[in-house]
Amino acid sequence: MKTLVTGGTVVSSTGRSEADVLIDGETIAAVLPPGSTVLGFDVAANVDTVIDATGKYVIPGGIDAHTHMEMPFGGTFASDTFESGTTAAAWGGTTTIVDFVVQYPGQHPVEQYQAWHGKADGSSAIDYGFHQILSDVQDSTLTAMNELMDEGVTSFKLFTAYKGVFLSDDGQILRAMQRAADTGAMIMGHAENGSVIDVLVQQAIERGDTDPIYHGLTRPWQAEAEATHRLIMLADLTGAPLYIVHVSARQAADQIAAARARGQNVFGETCPQYLYLSLEEQLGAPGFEGAKWVCSTPLRSRAEGHQNHLWHSLRTNHLQVVSTDHCPFCMKDQKEMGVGNFSKIPNGIGGVEHRMDLLYQGVVTGEITLERWVELCCVTPARMFGLYGRKGVIAPGADGDVVVYDPNGHTSIGVGRTHHMNMDYSAYEGFEVDGHVDTVISRGAVVVDGGQFHGRPGHGKYLRRCLSQYLV
Amino acid sequence: MKTLVTGGTVVSSTGRSEADVLIDGETIAAVLPPGSTVLGFDVAANVDTVIDATGKYVIPGGIDAHTHMEMPFGGTFASDTFESGTTAAAWGGTTTIVDFVVQYPGQHPVEQYQAWHGKADGSSAIDYGFHQILSDVQDSTLTAMNELMDEGVTSFKLFTAYKGVFLSDDGQILRAMQRAADTGAMIMGHAENGSVIDVLVQQAIERGDTDPIYHGLTRPWQAEAEATHRLIMLADLTGAPLYIVHVSARQAADQIAAARARGQNVFGETCPQYLYLSLEEQLGAPGFEGAKWVCSTPLRSRAEGHQNHLWHSLRTNHLQVVSTDHCPFCMKDQKEMGVGNFSKIPNGIGGVEHRMDLLYQGVVTGEITLERWVELCCVTPARMFGLYGRKGVIAPGADGDVVVYDPNGHTSIGVGRTHHMNMDYSAYEGFEVDGHVDTVISRGAVVVDGGQFHGRPGHGKYLRRCLSQYLV
Amino acid sequence: MKTLVTGGTVVSSTGRSEADVLIDGETIAAVLPPGSTVLGFDVAANVDTVIDATGKYVIPGGIDAHTHMEMPFGGTFASDTFESGTTAAAWGGTTTIVDFVVQYPGQHPVEQYQAWHGKADGSSAIDYGFHQILSDVQDSTLTAMNELMDEGVTSFKLFTAYKGVFLSDDGQILRAMQRAADTGAMIMGHAENGSVIDVLVQQAIERGDTDPIYHGLTRPWQAEAEATHRLIMLADLTGAPLYIVHVSARQAADQIAAARARGQNVFGETCPQYLYLSLEEQLGAPGFEGAKWVCSTPLRSRAEGHQNHLWHSLRTNHLQVVSTDHCPFCMKDQKEMGVGNFSKIPNGIGGVEHRMDLLYQGVVTGEITLERWVELCCVTPARMFGLYGRKGVIAPGADGDVVVYDPNGHTSIGVGRTHHMNMDYSAYEGFEVDGHVDTVISRGAVVVDGGQFHGRPGHGKYLRRCLSQYLV
Amino acid sequence: MKTLVTGGTVVSSTGRSEADVLIDGETIAAVLPPGSTVLGFDVAANVDTVIDATGKYVIPGGIDAHTHMEMPFGGTFASDTFESGTTAAAWGGTTTIVDFVVQYPGQHPVEQYQAWHGKADGSSAIDYGFHQILSDVQDSTLTAMNELMDEGVTSFKLFTAYKGVFLSDDGQILRAMQRAADTGAMIMGHAENGSVIDVLVQQAIERGDTDPIYHGLTRPWQAEAEATHRLIMLADLTGAPLYIVHVSARQAADQIAAARARGQNVFGETCPQYLYLSLEEQLGAPGFEGAKWVCSTPLRSRAEGHQNHLWHSLRTNHLQVVSTDHCPFCMKDQKEMGVGNFSKIPNGIGGVEHRMDLLYQGVVTGEITLERWVELCCVTPARMFGLYGRKGVIAPGADGDVVVYDPNGHTSIGVGRTHHMNMDYSAYEGFEVDGHVDTVISRGAVVVDGGQFHGRPGHGKYLRRCLSQYLV
Repeated sequence: MKTLVTGGTVVSSTGRSEADVLIDGETIAAVLPPGSTVLGFDVAANVDTVIDATGKYVIPGGIDAHTHMEMPFGGTFASDTFESGTTAAAWGGTTTIVDFVVQYPGQHPVEQYQAWHGKADGSSAIDYGFHQILSDVQDSTLTAMNELMDEGVTSFKLFTAYKGVFLSDDGQILRAMQRAADTGAMIMGHAENGSVIDVLVQQAIERGDTDPIYHGLTRPWQAEAEATHRLIMLADLTGAPLYIVHVSARQAADQIAAARARGQNVFGETCPQYLYLSLEEQLGAPGFEGAKWVCSTPLRSRAEGHQNHLWHSLRTNHLQVVSTDHCPFCMKDQKEMGVGNFSKIPNGIGGVEHRMDLLYQGVVTGEITLERWVELCCVTPARMFGLYGRKGVIAPGADGDVVVYDPNGHTSIGVGRTHHMNMDYSAYEGFEVDGHVDTVISRGAVVVDGGQFHGRPGHGKYLRRCLSQYLV
Repeated sequence: MKTLVTGGTVVSSTGRSEADVLIDGETIAAVLPPGSTVLGFDVAANVDTVIDATGKYVIPGGIDAHTHMEMPFGGTFASDTFESGTTAAAWGGTTTIVDFVVQYPGQHPVEQYQAWHGKADGSSAIDYGFHQILSDVQDSTLTAMNELMDEGVTSFKLFTAYKGVFLSDDGQILRAMQRAADTGAMIMGHAENGSVIDVLVQQAIERGDTDPIYHGLTRPWQAEAEATHRLIMLADLTGAPLYIVHVSARQAADQIAAARARGQNVFGETCPQYLYLSLEEQLGAPGFEGAKWVCSTPLRSRAEGHQNHLWHSLRTNHLQVVSTDHCPFCMKDQKEMGVGNFSKIPNGIGGVEHRMDLLYQGVVTGEITLERWVELCCVTPARMFGLYGRKGVIAPGADGDVVVYDPNGHTSIGVGRTHHMNMDYSAYEGFEVDGHVDTVISRGAVVVDGGQFHGRPGHGKYLRRCLSQYLV
Repeated sequence: MKTLVTGGTVVSSTGRSEADVLIDGETIAAVLPPGSTVLGFDVAANVDTVIDATGKYVIPGGIDAHTHMEMPFGGTFASDTFESGTTAAAWGGTTTIVDFVVQYPGQHPVEQYQAWHGKADGSSAIDYGFHQILSDVQDSTLTAMNELMDEGVTSFKLFTAYKGVFLSDDGQILRAMQRAADTGAMIMGHAENGSVIDVLVQQAIERGDTDPIYHGLTRPWQAEAEATHRLIMLADLTGAPLYIVHVSARQAADQIAAARARGQNVFGETCPQYLYLSLEEQLGAPGFEGAKWVCSTPLRSRAEGHQNHLWHSLRTNHLQVVSTDHCPFCMKDQKEMGVGNFSKIPNGIGGVEHRMDLLYQGVVTGEITLERWVELCCVTPARMFGLYGRKGVIAPGADGDVVVYDPNGHTSIGVGRTHHMNMDYSAYEGFEVDGHVDTVISRGAVVVDGGQFHGRPGHGKYLRRCLSQYLV
Repeated sequence: MKTLVTGGTVVSSTGRSEADVLIDGETIAAVLPPGSTVLGFDVAANVDTVIDATGKYVIPGGIDAHTHMEMPFGGTFASDTFESGTTAAAWGGTTTIVDFVVQYPGQHPVEQYQAWHGKADGSSAIDYGFHQILSDVQDSTLTAMNELMDEGVTSFKLFTAYKGVFLSDDGQILRAMQRAADTGAMIMGHAENGSVIDVLVQQAIERGDTDPIYHGLTRPWQAEAEATHRLIMLADLTGAPLYIVHVSARQAADQIAAARARGQNVFGETCPQYLYLSLEEQLGAPGFEGAKWVCSTPLRSRAEGHQNHLWHSLRTNHLQVVSTDHCPFCMKDQKEMGVGNFSKIPNGIGGVEHRMDLLYQGVVTGEITLERWVELCCVTPARMFGLYGRKGVIAPGADGDVVVYDPNGHTSIGVGRTHHMNMDYSAYEGFEVDGHVDTVISRGAVVVDGGQFHGRPGHGKYLRRCLSQYLV
């Protein structure tokens, strides 16, 4: 299968070129001048498919570095399977996900890693890699870290919250970081002070403050800023690179900025929900409605300026990546578990489908530049997690993951509109985006085009990842 | 003329690809997989020249955004003509310079611009653009700014020092910035408090402190940090983007970092001399020897940590560009004008030939990554000054400016070694670099290869520049 | 004359004591326990006057370190003479002022100093010292600085604005600072970038933006923050201590805070008008009304948060002193000079009478503690300007300057109410303060008591000041 | 007993007065002019004792807000009893200590408080108050906090280290802080990340790194900076005032400075050992010698600049108090417990006797001003811990705690010289101080004078403390 994308504007982190892109089999074969003639050789005449990208942007396929397909949590499972979730991702211009293997206390990391292959292999519509969640770090955990590195799992997520579930204490985190410093692995941190939060939650429930908004009010920004600084200090002590997931508090972003200014390899990710949604408007919606937006870290107060500060941090590269933390639950049967007790609401928001669009809207409104959009959503995730070269760039030898994005198109988000995720609601219901994912190519295969899905479960392959390529 | 660069590793700001680069005429025609076969078409068989870059880096030609060829200053002229200076640049892997048109008080900017064409056109061995120096800003200056924008001069340099020569007062600078904010031009600032320096110089001379080191001691870091903050505040007031040239004081770099963290479009450049050389070691050399390193801003004290901080600032992107401020003077007849009075020593250091090598040595020693080297020396200068797309990137449609850099080569800097600049000394005499510029291609023409210079005066063409492509 | 103040709570910077204060002649003779019996000796029975301060605060007389009585400016004179102004000050609990001797270009500082004695001696109702304004610094200025030090003038004010009137250029300021560093004098700085402001004013007038609010809009915070940093850098370079007068911009306060955190002897003063009034509400009042609040630095935007930040800075000791910059002009004949052209409005606000009350209201509203009130208004001004021991403290040997302040009293500010200044309006008309100046004693003489003024012109004596006692 | 201190210079936080001080019984009765005549009444003729302080400083008795007399720790007891320790304190010019009641897990705070009375009452030579250590916070702990407030214990110390001994987890700390916010109590924090330290210690022991210096190397600055920030965030969340004890890392001091700049009621204490001693020189002494200086937080590296930064922080009021953390252990039998395993060395350094002298030496060397010495050692400790008015000031009604300090005297520190503590070594052996504690008066009783100790066990009384008087 030979595909030529012609007439478009190829956008990278650093700029734009008018160029055609030839994909031969699964791989980008050449980047060519408009017209695709090389020394008289007419490439277009020798391909199977020509996709006309005139007036459109041609970008590397999106990489969502933070998803939780079929994740078991709180007595239920995230509602998207690898099949449904990656299909939705493809619809939205994302051609790679990095999902989290979950290891709960008592489970063995490598066995869980294998179990995740069981879920994803043969099901995923796009390529996928794995991060590994490590809970309750033990000697065996450290050994497993090395084994998993050999499997291409080069990033390990640790939690400062969720006692008895995900939590490792600081000494345990230190040991995992020491191992990461030895091997070059990336440590990912869920940064919230769980000990403090557990007290606040219990106090709220005892007071009868049980509505969804109390989910946010019992996870204050101080708990996030605190744990962020704590992980940064531990990383500094060990020399491990550190990536803070789902930053929602401006003060946490400031901690990351300060560490980076000192020259530390500390990175931060935020998600569309923290850029667009708020404690007051969504989490504080009347009745049980707010449950739709229960996720951790929580949505923050707009009055406190977190959303604007996160956009600012994306512009200044104080934060480097936008992922979704895609972890969908339906209202029915799932979110409803927490009626009368917010602490029983499964934590998570789905959004894997809308990340590229939602961030492109930030280009439209002037929050970020076009190049920065590509950098945040496609290039840096690849570099950060050891996929660059194969993913995240349009260059010969790279995988044929290409998205044609139409700045003159339009996308209406919502259940019944562009929504393909297995959720009975949309966190972004009614959002309108001034752009559209026209064509999505995954390893040379056109999986979305002309408003149709042409992909299939099992097309996606597992990605063994290298060490991070974003370190200084 | 069709040239193929094969077997190398193409390096960009964001990463590396094994790829071949086809140049057809003056332009990059395609980026191809190793082997250069496209759908069966053997590109290598159809070109005139094949350059084997196996085991080497293939990078966009270097861009030195700050040079002063033949500059009239202090009663003499910078000793490199456009011919000698651009030839030396090419030897060192730099394929574009942006030189400064000088307008002294009483002169008309546009006439000076034309005069500079008279010097450069037909003489330059590589492509060149112009920044415009504006002195003593008047109404006519503002009008000239618009006219020069039409000529592709999109950046204007203002001085807070050199009274009667280059100085504009703050109100004059404000007006030029207001104009820049209107047109989108970049304001470049020489940031030193000249009023303070003039007093300190006079006092030193009166005290009999006339050796070259007093050049540095009478231009203290406070004078640089002060003027840097001042320009930043004026830029904030007007909305003009601002680029601080030749940052040498750590405190000035910190001011830039702070402005950038606030989201302001403020940028900073440093030069190899500020990274490698110091007040104590070079400027303070015995007798008149230190005159070799008299330049402004001056070399700073190593004991105060400026050099390390500048490297740090390059890593963290607190500074964005490395240029040379190439402004060579010979010791004989030129620097010697200041024997017995440091204030008569022509200010300037030559280095256009060694920038790529000296910064690559920073890769070797671990100060910066390979990608960051390319970004600082090739990519960001192009983006900063409106050349990207044509320069600063290896992509179809870009000018065929390509450098093959051999990490296993070696370069010994010094007069009588790799030195081609018209200087009777080298500021970096005896420096050894673990790398080597093997091949230099300028708009498709191989100008350096096999240790020979194949270029010619007049090959270089004038570059009309766009607005900066680096703004947030 | 022997006076005993009994039953009150003596308040210092650090705390409170229930104590009686004996004044014998002009001097505090003893601080005694409640009841005033010393080893059986009944002090109360041996004094001329007993003032009952039960339930009230007994504090050192207020010190207003920034006044301009009878100041010639803009073709007129500040409307308060030393007699009227110091009488108003006494009414408000201020027993010492430090007024500014004005030296315009071409005038000799020492002659002006003598001229100011001519105005104040025999006229002032309370004690007074002098700062000296230095304009257009010359060699003779430096000599004069030394002569004035011998006269007890230990602080010299320099301006970065008012070209042709007060301005010294940076080199001139540097020289004055060098001299101050030699002698230990304090440099006071009016920090606004006059060069920038002059351009903005001219542009506004040309555009027809002539209303009073444009006075503020043409003196933006950047102009203040810039000049503040500039003076800080020059002070750092020379080692001179620096006191920034009338800080109104939060960013200027931040510059002072940063310098102090580095350990530099940099200090800042703000004034009640910058704490309570704003650009929007007062300076932007309809028609010409805003002229009442034309002063420089200008009132700042409340929306930008300057007022809250200044209160914050007072709490954290980022700013150390509250003065008034008392420089009153009447609307009639004076402010009216600027109808149709804001730049012709005399710059100044009167407030010497209300400082103690207005700041006490900050205690009532919780902005500052009671002790901090005393520190900001009485103690630190004395220490800052070399008066401590004689002024600023209730201790044996100190001048008998004591104020009895009634926290249960009430003060209504406004023309026709507590207003005694020679102004035909009040900048604080209608302000209500939950406290009252009951009794004011100046060098042992009761000058205000029982709602009556008992003082007289000529009671006040000139204060030869020592070097600052506030340096680290 | 009536005592008059004549001819001296009374020094406060804000300045100096030439004044005599009359003490009548246990209380300061008057502050009088030199000569001590009040309205003709000759005070000197009517007192029992006149102490001539001519040429000397008269200051409030020193307050050491951090001591551990007879503290049970690590299987032994701090070697000073209340009798020996307070006697040594008095020798050194300290007239008040605030000692820590220890409550280990399982013990009841109030019972421990009573037990501490059993140790101190009748034994102490000077007045004393108690802070309460709270371990493993439970519901009963919170109740006890209220009961202890009624007893004049208004400050509670919590630990982020020493698992199983002192540690409370963050949720427990939060609850104690919530209670403190309700009652106005001060939370004191021992800020080190014990979880991290425990891992590092175990790893060091396993590696065979057992010398005393590893005590320091396993308690890195990151562990202190981390816990400091953590406590600050928890304090911010609850509104409790927070006092960080024994700050030794510059980065921890910076965290306190940042919190204070935000306006938070956060305070910091350092100790003479962190100002004068270092990891390299003392803790790293050959063999087991370094055990003398094993304390927590540990001595820090001089190469990293902690000592200089702490002096700087004292100057800028980023730190507010100097205490000793007096916790002496003898080398013989006590420190020796850790031969071959640094983790078995009892943690603690004695210094209650030398604080006033050691800090005065900072005045001599120009690190702090004379007034700042008094503020750090006498005034602020009183204000911070609710003793001001009674202690910390020379004013009528205050306790007659007065020290006559001779700036022309000399003190040689060391066992066999001025050493009275029950330690078989001195942490400051051989230090020479250019000043001397001449006379010490405690509640009107001369306890040290003429090189003799005139005090007695049991003279000291328990001090019920108020809430902190240092809050903004």
